[in-house]
Amino acid sequence: MVATLQQLADVSGAELRGNPELEIQRVFPIDLAEEGDITFLSNPKYLSKLQDCRASAVIVAPGLDVPRENLLITANPYLAFAKILTFLQGPAEAGRGVLPGALISDSAELADSVTVHPGAVVGENVVVGPGTVLHPGVVLYAGVTVGADCLLHAGAIVREGCCLGDRVILQPSAIIGADGFGFAPDGASYYKIPQVGIVVLEDDVEIGACSCIDRAALGETRIRRGTKFDNLVQIGHNAEVGEDCIMVSQSGIAGSTKVGNHCTFGGQSAVAGHLKIGDNVTIGGRGGATNNVESNQMLTGLPLMPHREWLKMSMSLPKVPAMRKELNQLKKRLAELEAKFSEE
Amino acid sequence: MVATLQQLADVSGAELRGNPELEIQRVFPIDLAEEGDITFLSNPKYLSKLQDCRASAVIVAPGLDVPRENLLITANPYLAFAKILTFLQGPAEAGRGVLPGALISDSAELADSVTVHPGAVVGENVVVGPGTVLHPGVVLYAGVTVGADCLLHAGAIVREGCCLGDRVILQPSAIIGADGFGFAPDGASYYKIPQVGIVVLEDDVEIGACSCIDRAALGETRIRRGTKFDNLVQIGHNAEVGEDCIMVSQSGIAGSTKVGNHCTFGGQSAVAGHLKIGDNVTIGGRGGATNNVESNQMLTGLPLMPHREWLKMSMSLPKVPAMRKELNQLKKRLAELEAKFSEE
Amino acid sequence: MVATLQQLADVSGAELRGNPELEIQRVFPIDLAEEGDITFLSNPKYLSKLQDCRASAVIVAPGLDVPRENLLITANPYLAFAKILTFLQGPAEAGRGVLPGALISDSAELADSVTVHPGAVVGENVVVGPGTVLHPGVVLYAGVTVGADCLLHAGAIVREGCCLGDRVILQPSAIIGADGFGFAPDGASYYKIPQVGIVVLEDDVEIGACSCIDRAALGETRIRRGTKFDNLVQIGHNAEVGEDCIMVSQSGIAGSTKVGNHCTFGGQSAVAGHLKIGDNVTIGGRGGATNNVESNQMLTGLPLMPHREWLKMSMSLPKVPAMRKELNQLKKRLAELEAKFSEE
Repeated sequence: MVATLQQLADVSGAELRGNPELEIQRVFPIDLAEEGDITFLSNPKYLSKLQDCRASAVIVAPGLDVPRENLLITANPYLAFAKILTFLQGPAEAGRGVLPGALISDSAELADSVTVHPGAVVGENVVVGPGTVLHPGVVLYAGVTVGADCLLHAGAIVREGCCLGDRVILQPSAIIGADGFGFAPDGASYYKIPQVGIVVLEDDVEIGACSCIDRAALGETRIRRGTKFDNLVQIGHNAEVGEDCIMVSQSGIAGSTKVGNHCTFGGQSAVAGHLKIGDNVTIGGRGGATNNVESNQMLTGLPLMPHREWLKMSMSLPKVPAMRKELNQLKKRLAELEAKFSEE
Repeated sequence: MVATLQQLADVSGAELRGNPELEIQRVFPIDLAEEGDITFLSNPKYLSKLQDCRASAVIVAPGLDVPRENLLITANPYLAFAKILTFLQGPAEAGRGVLPGALISDSAELADSVTVHPGAVVGENVVVGPGTVLHPGVVLYAGVTVGADCLLHAGAIVREGCCLGDRVILQPSAIIGADGFGFAPDGASYYKIPQVGIVVLEDDVEIGACSCIDRAALGETRIRRGTKFDNLVQIGHNAEVGEDCIMVSQSGIAGSTKVGNHCTFGGQSAVAGHLKIGDNVTIGGRGGATNNVESNQMLTGLPLMPHREWLKMSMSLPKVPAMRKELNQLKKRLAELEAKFSEE
Repeated sequence: MVATLQQLADVSGAELRGNPELEIQRVFPIDLAEEGDITFLSNPKYLSKLQDCRASAVIVAPGLDVPRENLLITANPYLAFAKILTFLQGPAEAGRGVLPGALISDSAELADSVTVHPGAVVGENVVVGPGTVLHPGVVLYAGVTVGADCLLHAGAIVREGCCLGDRVILQPSAIIGADGFGFAPDGASYYKIPQVGIVVLEDDVEIGACSCIDRAALGETRIRRGTKFDNLVQIGHNAEVGEDCIMVSQSGIAGSTKVGNHCTFGGQSAVAGHLKIGDNVTIGGRGGATNNVESNQMLTGLPLMPHREWLKMSMSLPKVPAMRKELNQLKKRLAELEAKFSEE
């Protein structure tokens, strides 16, 4: 898609300097951009790179002295880049309807403007809102509700009775509503506890590839508005994750834990079950929460500690073998001195 | 489904006190239960919650003084809860046969009472036992054997020649029998070793969503009766896991390791390859076994150590930077004292 | 398949000693081999096991005194074993064409000798090379290119525009080209950055079950020739992994990181984003790279350190609680001595 610089200014809310009629075809990074592209400068330290850049226009922060004719000036160039990229990508696949090879139950209710690809399977009494796209191999079990303008990629599976809000994105093979991991010990072996609750994904939630959000034993597992999960993330049954949280790949939250809003979980981090995590909590990569966490903290390690303390500790630990030796030498020297002193 | 209190007493093996004709519709937690529900008190410390509870009946342990008219009394209320929940859920989907849109090889042998959903694919010479349900997107490769009353959820894949016992449950996208990770270094690059063995899942095994049990190079990878895996678990080729084990999400066991019975592996824990783990071993979350482990131990950490030792160590480690400083001060003071002493 | 010992010598490049006409049916391990099998001795310490071994022939390294009539002698018995196993397994499934129940777009170009199983879905403008096999539930989005002699197992998904070279293997539910995890903070919430780049898997790459290789934001994520990933591995957007690398299960590489050739990443290890890892780097299981890594190193731990140093440190850490006590005792004794000395 081609757009004028004026259109891109409008889309991104940026101030335009230069030729509003300039035609732009792509957004591209500084080092790869060609004529006809717009690029962006999100970090002033790369300013020098602009000298050799062939882009026709640049998105920059205000106050930078950029010797270029065509600029979009905005306080958040990275966000403007994202908005322009979205615009240039064009609208999502328009409503193509139910394509041949899709398998739809008679009792399902699909809005007119959906797209259901070949090989997608829609179960009994499913409801799918307008503008939603189901890719091949998507499976919606009986009684699932999917809102408007959702994008469910191939192999995404939503089990019985689960609810997705509007603009929810499931990456390929995201698994919504598998059984929670619950068993009652029966002397020697384990008796399965039926998991009869559901999963609710609120509006604007995105779930990564092969990430698993388990259904509740009773009641619901809930992921609140705007929260984004990377790939291979695990959420246990009856957990709740607040609004606008970020979970990076291979992290996990165990059952019944409640997480507040605006939290971030680094890669391979973990939270044990039945805990409360406050708002604005950041847990670093590989961090592990084994106790409740108050709001507004940045923690790392297992057990968790303030990030700076963890850094200091990490630097010291390799020195422990040498410290043991020193400690033994001191002990010997002190004993010698004590002996000499008492001899006197 | 509605049941009388007498039926629920029979199902759970509990002693009934009160009205055997009382009709119960649901099991629900103490704080959410309504009239017509049965609830359960698994922990005596929540006894006070019963005062405001609206449930019509309560499952309790013997010896508790519960001022309620309708009780089911049993030594294991949690197990009784699970059994009653199973009963109220009703029987699994009755044998609906091969539904339109299922793709079944002519040479497959399906028992009359199976259910095969649209979009499931059954390969050549597959055998499926009575009462088994295959959800959409299940793929059984050639020569697979599945026992009776199994439940294979959407996207579960069983590769060629693998065997599932009775009452096996595969959560969505569980992968049984992918190639083991075996390569022979060939100077510069890697030559793939064909993985011609199989996977055997014995009776009552459950495999979580996106968990992967690799086929053996030669011979078999075996998961024994009653063992349960959570989501995103990895089992390497030729591994064996004993009976009634539990593996929590994102844990893994590398190739050729043999695990005994009644072991528990915490979330994100790992066991290296070619090891022996005894019976009744518990490895805590994030623990990592790099050596054989004798039976009857509870271990944590990397390397593993007794859980209590790990706790003590963890509390001490953040103090190492301060210890280093102290050690240096002591050294200086000792040197001064030594100097003074020798001056005399 | 049955082969003569001569054929197996030719296939493996080994020197034949004994009867070239001897017929061999299987390769099997020493302890399980029967008459008609060939076995292999990759480790001389198992030489004594050969006494009771019933195999008809043995693959051995030169210089070993093996009292057997029929031998294949080669410097790399393990590699010879792999080559013979491949040969005995017979050729891959011959080109069976598009089988009934496969869903192929009219605009897709499939070579004559492909095999497309029931339930596989091939999107618009896809190109698939000769000899390639697509199992049930494989989904190729629009514009995907797949080379010759590839093997895509059930549930493997390749999203729009991604490119696979020749002889690429995707294990079940490998996910190629899911959206990279990129969002621009927009004050309170997150604005999705469209991920318009692709993934390129070069020749001879193998991706494990439920492993996820994210598409680039702009440009490409690239996995170079001969690299092999185990199951449940995560590769972030715009990452590059060099030739002949190995990533063991549940490991991950974050976005924009560049990895050299011949690197090995242990199970559950991780590399942070925007880093450079040299050639011939080995990161041990659970290791975590938070900084660039120079070539030719073997590192472990978080933060990374030389493997030996990590081992020494690990042995010392459990002693820190006792060291703290000793340190306090020394402090007291020293203070006493100082006091006595100053009294004099």
